[in-house]
Amino acid sequence: MHLDINTHDQTGYGLDHLPLAIMGGTDNQAGHVVTRVGDTVIDLAALGDLGVNLGLTDTTTAHPTDRTDDPWHANSLNALFATGHEAMARLRDRISTLATQTVIEDRLGPAFRSIDEVTLLLPIDCKNYVDFYSSLQHATNLGRLFRPNGDPLTPNWRHLPIGYHGRSSTVVVSDTPVRRPFGLRIVDNKCVFGPSLRLDIEAEVGFVVGRTSTLGTAVKTEEFFDYVAGVVLVNDWSARDIQSFEYQPLGPFLGKSFLTSISAWVTPLEALTSARTTPVTQDPIPADYLVDTDPWNLAIELEVELNDTLISHPPFATTYWTPGQQLAHQTVNGADVRVGDLFASGTVSGEHPNQYGSLIELTNGGSQPLTLSDHSTRGFLDDGDTVTIRASAPSLRGNRLSLGEVRGTIVGQG
Amino acid sequence: MHLDINTHDQTGYGLDHLPLAIMGGTDNQAGHVVTRVGDTVIDLAALGDLGVNLGLTDTTTAHPTDRTDDPWHANSLNALFATGHEAMARLRDRISTLATQTVIEDRLGPAFRSIDEVTLLLPIDCKNYVDFYSSLQHATNLGRLFRPNGDPLTPNWRHLPIGYHGRSSTVVVSDTPVRRPFGLRIVDNKCVFGPSLRLDIEAEVGFVVGRTSTLGTAVKTEEFFDYVAGVVLVNDWSARDIQSFEYQPLGPFLGKSFLTSISAWVTPLEALTSARTTPVTQDPIPADYLVDTDPWNLAIELEVELNDTLISHPPFATTYWTPGQQLAHQTVNGADVRVGDLFASGTVSGEHPNQYGSLIELTNGGSQPLTLSDHSTRGFLDDGDTVTIRASAPSLRGNRLSLGEVRGTIVGQG
Repeated sequence: MHLDINTHDQTGYGLDHLPLAIMGGTDNQAGHVVTRVGDTVIDLAALGDLGVNLGLTDTTTAHPTDRTDDPWHANSLNALFATGHEAMARLRDRISTLATQTVIEDRLGPAFRSIDEVTLLLPIDCKNYVDFYSSLQHATNLGRLFRPNGDPLTPNWRHLPIGYHGRSSTVVVSDTPVRRPFGLRIVDNKCVFGPSLRLDIEAEVGFVVGRTSTLGTAVKTEEFFDYVAGVVLVNDWSARDIQSFEYQPLGPFLGKSFLTSISAWVTPLEALTSARTTPVTQDPIPADYLVDTDPWNLAIELEVELNDTLISHPPFATTYWTPGQQLAHQTVNGADVRVGDLFASGTVSGEHPNQYGSLIELTNGGSQPLTLSDHSTRGFLDDGDTVTIRASAPSLRGNRLSLGEVRGTIVGQG
Repeated sequence: MHLDINTHDQTGYGLDHLPLAIMGGTDNQAGHVVTRVGDTVIDLAALGDLGVNLGLTDTTTAHPTDRTDDPWHANSLNALFATGHEAMARLRDRISTLATQTVIEDRLGPAFRSIDEVTLLLPIDCKNYVDFYSSLQHATNLGRLFRPNGDPLTPNWRHLPIGYHGRSSTVVVSDTPVRRPFGLRIVDNKCVFGPSLRLDIEAEVGFVVGRTSTLGTAVKTEEFFDYVAGVVLVNDWSARDIQSFEYQPLGPFLGKSFLTSISAWVTPLEALTSARTTPVTQDPIPADYLVDTDPWNLAIELEVELNDTLISHPPFATTYWTPGQQLAHQTVNGADVRVGDLFASGTVSGEHPNQYGSLIELTNGGSQPLTLSDHSTRGFLDDGDTVTIRASAPSLRGNRLSLGEVRGTIVGQG
């Protein structure tokens, strides 16, 4: 067996990427941690079982006696991420060494699978899910639509990265069907119950926590790399009619909590070193706890596809509040982060209309529907519609890496 | 050994109560599920180990071979609650039978401990924590204080039980120290970072989920008993200055997420049958999914003590939105509930000023400080202050049962 590494570099899944996911186990067995090179999925749990040293400790970790602490046979990446970035770097070295061998030993064959053969599960077990609101353009666009008579930005917006807690139990893996939610909305000044008629997307970038912090101790912006393991793409499905009726004064609830989809593949921070970029200038300069001595953002370019039509290209690097600031903010009051926690940027919307990350922005509240490649139009999502969010970022080798896509299809309610 | 049951009935912890908690294990061992009769803690894990049949199955469950599924040696009550109400009823029968024996066998002695000897842990492992806003009086009082120029109640308030997600990882057990949080607040029209100067309490009743629902399927108001295991008392500590600056438009975040304390003892719904009472009339009649064919609330009487002074008596039965409506609402959009989830009523405030469940209400935003028994005054909480919330409810035998108290002491930063 031989992996053609040069070809794989062009797929966005070369050796400089090595994203991680959880492959479903058979029957009631635990899942397996996997990575991928091109369209080849490498089963790291199987490799360990076959005696390959994956670098987590300095000795072979195969056949650990205590399976409850086994990070490889697991239903989430939490235990693996908790081993830390040094272990992750060793793991990446071992996989690269293995994959670049001219001939991979036949006995390791069962650990190599085609991506078409495997089912991927939700990669994290998250206790806290926080959704930020860090794009200035998005906040401005939504402020205009939700509060047409006021200042689109609330007075706090430039002083802190606004965020709120989402529902952890409804964070699901890509390709989970999206049931159109029911709820209350206003029709002709009356409160009516029924399915949402303004079902929308939010294209976001999410961050997965890899280290639990101490309750009562703030995490600094500079400690981002110590506490965060990797990046996922997020579609925070939103029912705009339900949201607009319910959200005052305590924020969105049912309009968001029915489902949040994330990509099956988590891109480790190690793979995003070349994606670092200078963030946008902030005015006013925020409070000290939000100032990073070496500020950065990530040059992740998103694409949003509705059925067969590419409808938007949101540029993550334009978000006003950076990932480091989002982490520092959520802990400055003493709250802890836990391994597996997810925090997401909020909808990524660039300056130009073809860079908006939600339909409510792209269609101006539904009043200017999009025309798709089949000549049909959409203000919001119809049953049967499929939305796919993809993204790429500069890779270590000068190509681009592909972040794992997040996709969902709308299912009507009976 | 002999337990004086008649005496215990007067303590609020008689045989008709039998609340459940988790006692800390020694070293790195798992915790033990315990109950109490009066001030005697009964270690159910130890009883099982001693061969006592606790009724979870029809045969003795002592020494289960698979400890990972053992509900008795566990760090939360989740696995026990997941066994369901029938098992819980059998368990309560077995404990009653054991405790009313004239002489309890000496060999079972190690399972009986004084409450002063044990350390109790957080009783649940919660994925979702939802905080409602179901007291009409509280919402009106806060609306007046936070939005003095508008209608105190937002237009949605009487149509749905407003709620939002809190931070699951900072739900802690009673007696956990409460660190005064830092954050941004407005002073003389400027945004200033520092410790909260308006640290407050919220006296609430919380509900613990005992059964996971199906994603995409709404739980009905009538299914409350099927999905909820028991009740805790909640103090949802709030930093009013941080909250008032940050909460528009996405709701409270750092002003709440630093800590939420719950009682160590969970009162099973089985013990609250006699506490059922007719709820307040709702006008307008809400949407069908919020209508209960046999509506009920619970006649739980709360008490709030600040240091040595009893400062309020919030009556839970006056809350406008009932526990059944809170459960139905959070799932009507298809969101699931999970075993261990916590949802809380929101601050319980009765009609009279001595029934308000937060200091911001009791002191009219700090402008009318309370005078404590030591003649000191409080607008909000000082470092060193201890707040204790207690509650009682009618018991099955005609006495009153005491819900486990929730207590916390404010600790300054540095």
